Amino acid sequence: MSLYYNKFQAGSDFLVSEFPTKIEPKIKKKEAKSRLKKIRKELAHLQDVMYAHDKYSVLICIQGMDTSGKDSLIRRVFEKFNARGVVVHSFKVPTSKEYQHDYLWRHYIALPARGKFSVFNRTHYENVLVSRVHPHNLEEEHLPDIADTDNLPNDFWEKRFEQINNFEQHLVQNGTIILKYFLHISKDEQKSRILRRLNNEDKNWKFSPSDLSERKKWDEYMHYYEEAIRNTSKTSAPWYIVPADSKWVARYVVAKILLEVLAKRKDIKYPELPEKIADNIKSYKKELENE
Amino acid sequence: MSLYYNKFQAGSDFLVSEFPTKIEPKIKKKEAKSRLKKIRKELAHLQDVMYAHDKYSVLICIQGMDTSGKDSLIRRVFEKFNARGVVVHSFKVPTSKEYQHDYLWRHYIALPARGKFSVFNRTHYENVLVSRVHPHNLEEEHLPDIADTDNLPNDFWEKRFEQINNFEQHLVQNGTIILKYFLHISKDEQKSRILRRLNNEDKNWKFSPSDLSERKKWDEYMHYYEEAIRNTSKTSAPWYIVPADSKWVARYVVAKILLEVLAKRKDIKYPELPEKIADNIKSYKKELENE
Repeated sequence: MSLYYNKFQAGSDFLVSEFPTKIEPKIKKKEAKSRLKKIRKELAHLQDVMYAHDKYSVLICIQGMDTSGKDSLIRRVFEKFNARGVVVHSFKVPTSKEYQHDYLWRHYIALPARGKFSVFNRTHYENVLVSRVHPHNLEEEHLPDIADTDNLPNDFWEKRFEQINNFEQHLVQNGTIILKYFLHISKDEQKSRILRRLNNEDKNWKFSPSDLSERKKWDEYMHYYEEAIRNTSKTSAPWYIVPADSKWVARYVVAKILLEVLAKRKDIKYPELPEKIADNIKSYKKELENE
Repeated sequence: MSLYYNKFQAGSDFLVSEFPTKIEPKIKKKEAKSRLKKIRKELAHLQDVMYAHDKYSVLICIQGMDTSGKDSLIRRVFEKFNARGVVVHSFKVPTSKEYQHDYLWRHYIALPARGKFSVFNRTHYENVLVSRVHPHNLEEEHLPDIADTDNLPNDFWEKRFEQINNFEQHLVQNGTIILKYFLHISKDEQKSRILRRLNNEDKNWKFSPSDLSERKKWDEYMHYYEEAIRNTSKTSAPWYIVPADSKWVARYVVAKILLEVLAKRKDIKYPELPEKIADNIKSYKKELENE
């Protein structure tokens, strides 16, 4: 049986240009929305089972350029989740306290407990994306041995990929399910979304002049996304490249992949009552009724 | 020049039996104590420089059997430290909150910030020591795929060693200096120390009946210490085997190694004032004097 997520999964030969930002879905928008509704319900049920099962945790990483729809996608996909078992962490520019630690530290402390979900809105991957486009940011990390951020050691980024892979491998081996989504939009689509923010007064607050200067570095970003994804998309912690020019398509794709990945884990189920208790359900009932 | 710490450093062929619990020091106790005093002062100075330098952090791991002198050693070695820059974390049986995360999580959040020291009194190594002697403890970790803790996958412990090595490698590559000490005492010495706790009313509180049941597993513990240290003593994060039958010897050895390791880092120094400010020291003085 062909699995839905296979189409979107990036391999070690990933090329940004080979993955579409736009797909012609076989179903109409209305149909997709009603299916998404159903998927959300199934996800909410699975979340409940996972919470009771209390063995796995789920880490969902969302990356994407400005305006790629990260926030609204998170709102929609996790709409039916029980807030008890899901935490969204939006990682901004590191604080000075965070900079006093290795770059994974602030992500480590935000990892999901067993039975729970963490959604990272922007992730530890910013350390091999924005930090490559703006290597001067590395100065804030106070790394020893790094005298000049314009002339980093040859293997600096390779080592970071290895560190990230080891970090994720450790988590997977200890019970975390990891999914990494790249919300893939075209440069044209970004242009119209920024324009919409500028035209709509209620959305003005979302705009920052840096959106335009970052946009000028589009190709650089794409190049580094490509390298990061190639080096860190593993069977145990894969990257999914989500066509995100259409928001409803992106949400549907993200939700469907998540459901499929979780549903594959046949061992996730409500725990059974210990035999000793299960055998005596009748007498417990009696005790309570005769109270 | 032969370095002091070389004698105590364990390699990948480490044998517990080849390292002494007792050495005949070339100096007398009184002389050692006065030298330790001097070392403590030098360490305190280095701590101050490191704090100002703000690039490295130092992680000191202390492991050892019950009564090996961990607590009192920490008190003595770090006596002159500025409390601002050192935190001691005594890791006990994990709490239920800690068990809801991977076994490294509680250690990760306790890692030292740049310029600071963390001392782990018992460490993440308990996960390949006490957890091996008492594999049923692993049930508390709620690991998926582990149905029966008496029949763990063949490579289970090997994977843990790899996870720990990757964890430490990441830290070292991002500016943490790691020293791991095993306070090595003989079984006889432990006997007399436990007896002292039982004989001295003021020390009774330190005794627990489990001290005796754990003592029965002495050989098992030594075997697992041996395996753990063999697999995780790396040039970048070495294990030092400290003869600990005599407390003053152990303290002296630990402090001297620490000083030697830190003093080797010639790049650690007080930061220089930016040229612009340095050039104008005179005029700043004048401004203040003429206030």
